[in-house]
Amino acid sequence: MRATRLAIMLAAAMACGPLSAREAVTYSANVTEAEVLAAQQAWGQALVSISKAYESGGRTAATELAGKVIDEAYGYNLGPVLFKPTLTQAPQTFRTTRDGALAYFVGGDEDYPNDTGFALKGWTKVEIRNAAIHINGDLASTMGNVILTNKDGTTTTVDKTWNFKKTDDGKLRIVLHHSSLPYSN
Amino acid sequence: MRATRLAIMLAAAMACGPLSAREAVTYSANVTEAEVLAAQQAWGQALVSISKAYESGGRTAATELAGKVIDEAYGYNLGPVLFKPTLTQAPQTFRTTRDGALAYFVGGDEDYPNDTGFALKGWTKVEIRNAAIHINGDLASTMGNVILTNKDGTTTTVDKTWNFKKTDDGKLRIVLHHSSLPYSN
Amino acid sequence: MRATRLAIMLAAAMACGPLSAREAVTYSANVTEAEVLAAQQAWGQALVSISKAYESGGRTAATELAGKVIDEAYGYNLGPVLFKPTLTQAPQTFRTTRDGALAYFVGGDEDYPNDTGFALKGWTKVEIRNAAIHINGDLASTMGNVILTNKDGTTTTVDKTWNFKKTDDGKLRIVLHHSSLPYSN
Amino acid sequence: MRATRLAIMLAAAMACGPLSAREAVTYSANVTEAEVLAAQQAWGQALVSISKAYESGGRTAATELAGKVIDEAYGYNLGPVLFKPTLTQAPQTFRTTRDGALAYFVGGDEDYPNDTGFALKGWTKVEIRNAAIHINGDLASTMGNVILTNKDGTTTTVDKTWNFKKTDDGKLRIVLHHSSLPYSN
Repeated sequence: MRATRLAIMLAAAMACGPLSAREAVTYSANVTEAEVLAAQQAWGQALVSISKAYESGGRTAATELAGKVIDEAYGYNLGPVLFKPTLTQAPQTFRTTRDGALAYFVGGDEDYPNDTGFALKGWTKVEIRNAAIHINGDLASTMGNVILTNKDGTTTTVDKTWNFKKTDDGKLRIVLHHSSLPYSN
Repeated sequence: MRATRLAIMLAAAMACGPLSAREAVTYSANVTEAEVLAAQQAWGQALVSISKAYESGGRTAATELAGKVIDEAYGYNLGPVLFKPTLTQAPQTFRTTRDGALAYFVGGDEDYPNDTGFALKGWTKVEIRNAAIHINGDLASTMGNVILTNKDGTTTTVDKTWNFKKTDDGKLRIVLHHSSLPYSN
Repeated sequence: MRATRLAIMLAAAMACGPLSAREAVTYSANVTEAEVLAAQQAWGQALVSISKAYESGGRTAATELAGKVIDEAYGYNLGPVLFKPTLTQAPQTFRTTRDGALAYFVGGDEDYPNDTGFALKGWTKVEIRNAAIHINGDLASTMGNVILTNKDGTTTTVDKTWNFKKTDDGKLRIVLHHSSLPYSN
Repeated sequence: MRATRLAIMLAAAMACGPLSAREAVTYSANVTEAEVLAAQQAWGQALVSISKAYESGGRTAATELAGKVIDEAYGYNLGPVLFKPTLTQAPQTFRTTRDGALAYFVGGDEDYPNDTGFALKGWTKVEIRNAAIHINGDLASTMGNVILTNKDGTTTTVDKTWNFKKTDDGKLRIVLHHSSLPYSN
């Protein structure tokens, strides 16, 4: 009889004790808001660090550090990054390759003759003001203002958009970065 | 001079006050563990409710309720659902259509002559014991035991796997459901 | 004996004929490149259409059409949209609400006094040149140039980033849109 | 004047030639149906290979190969795998760890005394018949029958569900696997 076949003893069920819903292990590949905010802060700190490395060790030190920052914080290991830096112009507006990103941050690359090194401008502080944040699986998008302070105390505000992707190692990487100066008429 | 062009006044930055990271609105399409556990509980309660509807209102009442439950809790509105119920057999093992699911739960469909109505078996309690949970974007997967108690106090344990998808309306829907009796040699 | 219990007859297997891998139904929630390119074209055509509606029916006609376009092509029904239009300024740079988007496109909203209506500028043609495209589940990101031609034949190039999300109804919606004039030093 | 500021020369636009939509690089993290079907075939071939390794090299050879297969084809490197093998029983039904999976496939592990080695049963052919397939970002789900043939020509049909996750290296890994013998009343 089917009812008999279906009947599994309570004793057996009790043996499954460790598998209660409360104790179950949950593995998530998703990004959290806290991770996004931390990744933004890390980007700001990295920019300040490259400026400091430039002051103390010149372009060589800055370039070495910037290379590490790009490898750590950007997703060039995954594929082309959608990067439109604040100050680039046609025909080199978009920096989908690691070389293009490094040239933008520290200059000194003859293939990118207009790049003077954005990260070398003596930045001392970076403040991030998000208009809103989207989280969609392992991808998070932010848009808002970033206020950069340099050693003279001058501030520069940019409109900035980021897409961060959480990779399998649990790190967030920038896979899209569009930065622009505010429109002025 | 570029430095001059870059300089945006602190006053302007201050005007952006509302956009602090802390106050930014975060919109997430992701499933949470709490939502998954709630959807599992809802499934169990729905099964018990259909059993009760059958007792008080017969197959007509049970079928009406089961239809609502399927429309609410399963993803047949999205496409074929990967549903392997506990007691189905070839050539009707897999119930990728709404009709096939409804027939399994309440029987009475001549196209599914072997279906007697799994939800009509007098279930009074459903306990869920997750072995582990995966969360991947808007999709969550669970695997574990589900222990069903009927009105005689007999329990039936099944091995059950679910994929829940969070749809745009914020609801979780079952898009994959594999249930099987424990193996016995 | 286990071997006996395991043995399922070939006859039964044959009965499963319809379920061959080749014939199986595949349901995908993912965005395709073709859908992304089509959504970009649709955005351009919509902009041109609003310009035409303005010419023939004035701001009333343009506003009505723009409202439909926003409801169709943007994701304000999902939550705040990350929208930084080309010509907006602090403190109204970011248009996370539908009202803010509509004001930008057609103006005439006293809450957005600086908006004159970007879509009313006589656009006749929109060309899109992608630097690269990312596809990540139901989300696609594009970055590149958009070249707008108006009725005088003047062209305007903008640097533009979009995130499109494919919703459950199969439509792509813009959930992030960052547009900026090229940097000039 | 705004119109002047907006006007970007056609010449500049022409310089962006390489960035046409058609030539843009598209990077996708999504699973394709072809990848899913290939991963299923690879699983079947691996099972046959372990059986062959057992015949020619005994349990040592089979265990070595099975370990490689698990490391290659399953996602234990990501977290707990939701694995309910065909023939396991409480309290060791679910094999969320690599050790539990290896024990199931090749036996010989005193911590899993009931495991005799499913992959050692002389399998010579594996046929997969999908009822349907879901694709959701980097995750694909399949459900259907798998028909296993052993060297005696006996076939065993199982009801099988898989979730495959495409990891950052482009490989598909099984993160969920529920297999069960068909229900018989």
